[in-house]
Amino acid sequence: MVLNLFAFFLIQAQENIGGTTTQIRSPVKHEDGSVSFHLHAPNAQTVQLVGNWMASSPDSVIVMSQDARGVWSATVDSLPSDLFLYYFVLDGLRINDPSNVYQIRDVSQVFNYFITEGEPADFFKTQDVPHGTLVKLWYPSQIEGESRRMTVYLPPGYHEQHADYPVLYLLHGMGGDEEAWPTLGRVSQIMDNLVAKGQIAPMLVVMPNGHTSNQAAPGYSARGEYPIEFRTPDVGSGVMESTFMEVVDFIENSFRVKKDKKHRALAGLSMGGSHSLFIAAANPDVFDYIGLFSAAFRLTDQAGLNIYDEFGKNLERQKKQGYQLYWIGMGTDDFLYQTGVDYRNRLDRLGMEYMYHESEGGHTWSNWRKYLIEFSRLLFKD
Amino acid sequence: MVLNLFAFFLIQAQENIGGTTTQIRSPVKHEDGSVSFHLHAPNAQTVQLVGNWMASSPDSVIVMSQDARGVWSATVDSLPSDLFLYYFVLDGLRINDPSNVYQIRDVSQVFNYFITEGEPADFFKTQDVPHGTLVKLWYPSQIEGESRRMTVYLPPGYHEQHADYPVLYLLHGMGGDEEAWPTLGRVSQIMDNLVAKGQIAPMLVVMPNGHTSNQAAPGYSARGEYPIEFRTPDVGSGVMESTFMEVVDFIENSFRVKKDKKHRALAGLSMGGSHSLFIAAANPDVFDYIGLFSAAFRLTDQAGLNIYDEFGKNLERQKKQGYQLYWIGMGTDDFLYQTGVDYRNRLDRLGMEYMYHESEGGHTWSNWRKYLIEFSRLLFKD
Repeated sequence: MVLNLFAFFLIQAQENIGGTTTQIRSPVKHEDGSVSFHLHAPNAQTVQLVGNWMASSPDSVIVMSQDARGVWSATVDSLPSDLFLYYFVLDGLRINDPSNVYQIRDVSQVFNYFITEGEPADFFKTQDVPHGTLVKLWYPSQIEGESRRMTVYLPPGYHEQHADYPVLYLLHGMGGDEEAWPTLGRVSQIMDNLVAKGQIAPMLVVMPNGHTSNQAAPGYSARGEYPIEFRTPDVGSGVMESTFMEVVDFIENSFRVKKDKKHRALAGLSMGGSHSLFIAAANPDVFDYIGLFSAAFRLTDQAGLNIYDEFGKNLERQKKQGYQLYWIGMGTDDFLYQTGVDYRNRLDRLGMEYMYHESEGGHTWSNWRKYLIEFSRLLFKD
Repeated sequence: MVLNLFAFFLIQAQENIGGTTTQIRSPVKHEDGSVSFHLHAPNAQTVQLVGNWMASSPDSVIVMSQDARGVWSATVDSLPSDLFLYYFVLDGLRINDPSNVYQIRDVSQVFNYFITEGEPADFFKTQDVPHGTLVKLWYPSQIEGESRRMTVYLPPGYHEQHADYPVLYLLHGMGGDEEAWPTLGRVSQIMDNLVAKGQIAPMLVVMPNGHTSNQAAPGYSARGEYPIEFRTPDVGSGVMESTFMEVVDFIENSFRVKKDKKHRALAGLSMGGSHSLFIAAANPDVFDYIGLFSAAFRLTDQAGLNIYDEFGKNLERQKKQGYQLYWIGMGTDDFLYQTGVDYRNRLDRLGMEYMYHESEGGHTWSNWRKYLIEFSRLLFKD
């Protein structure tokens, strides 16, 4: 009955289909803040490192150098505090780092990631604090008569405390789905850590899929492995904005939440910022807190869609009904910067109050994670 | 206010850090059931395909061939109906297929996957049926005074129907964690599809982390990026088995479940099968259904651990108290096959009834997914 321990090592060999395992660790974070990357590829002619901290020009890759064992290496000094994506280019072929099991999908590509030290990066890590719950569920939708998938974060204590909580509805951009904020956006970690520090009220965060052409993220749809497109047919169609209240109704019927305007917030990044401003204006009694993160302020001027045609009227009504916070975040390098200027001018002409937060950088998850921290700290101040 | 559509394509360029994108699709499933794999690597000298449908000898890789554009290809005929893992070996370096965004982590390695047609593969796909909910939560534990992470599947209708449900506790093997059954094991898809066909009762499936040395899967622990080990110090320590009732108590206090023996099942694969048989015998009033999938029947004869020392006594007590089903599944090629024979002989000598299911194949997820289907069809027949 005593099992030979050797047999246990075979389990891995038998089910894990082996592979050229080496003892390489990569990336390696050093005490001084520098980070080293390694790849064992003795037969390669060139290996380059590409990271999202670099400028996006083709010249800005880092050429790695090879040692006698065939290990290619590069070290990067003094990265800021953040979560970073990277990959290698081996003789012209883009590959992931086989030594780094930590990966995140962004639209149709999978990247390796690592997290540096300090703030805000410490907010992106699982810390020794009470943890919330992450829920993947399907809700009935009027859109194509299908059910649709969403992610819901429940705050620490939700299962034990039997309280009602406020809700932040948090929308992704054009290159995203219901997995984007939980993975690239680090929502569970950020909210857990902000709650633990007493910097935010415990709240639900509801992350639906903003592409009404799809019912779920790649790999989770009953339609199978549909081509993963960046710009799906729903973009600019108004369907997401016009049907959004079904998401609110589902959440309020399914979870213990507070069901009044002052306990509802709505925010989104890029396309999700556009969704947020149209939804909030069309439903002026529903949301007291609106957050526009690097928002795409308008996609098309598509006639015949009330939610777009009546936007001017809706904004005036929203102004009249009032709100607690209209928050706009934008990076100085964002390609949407000028549309942000134009939109703020429009709000100024209307006399609509807003809080404007201008940051460095561009249209990046680095900014959106920080905007989530800034924005959520301002919510639900009863 | 009208946004230049061109700008939207920049979003991807700006946030997604580019990469050498090609128009290659891989894998491609053909009408006749064959599957083609492609990799654009003009500078490579050799590219091989390695899949978990091949024998695990170094000779059984498939050598891919290169065309004039530098695209390497291979086609595999007549795969059975299943979920398959694969990778490429490029000039000796193991890499994932950059054209396939569908990936699953198995212990410390990430594999591409694809699913073929027919049964049982159709059970592993998201179909157009009512879907259950997948919950990632943390529960308080006596183990090191930490909270621990688990995955819970709630059946379709759980949020709407206010019924109480039976529970299947489902344990992973040595190379696993609370992410193993939901990803490699396709628990959500299998249970959704079995419920839709009326082949099983709607039930909760509770998937804790069986490595008591870790509090969560890689990437989710407050201890940071600990080395991902196959054999952690907890293996054979008896801690998982001795403390398991805290998992049952947490579930019964947190979800709407039936709280009697005839509505509780416990099953596990490999190390999780070992956990299951010790836990079930030590708690003969708790579980009416026990499933041992390719079980490792004993890890060590470690003295001083009551849960091991008293196993013989416990088994006799379990026999006396009775149970509905003691199900044993084993593949004829499993390296644990003989320990299975020995264990069944022991049960025979005791006069303990069991149902034995022998399949082809070895110690593989291919078998464990099928065992889950077989076993769950036998549960909770009131």
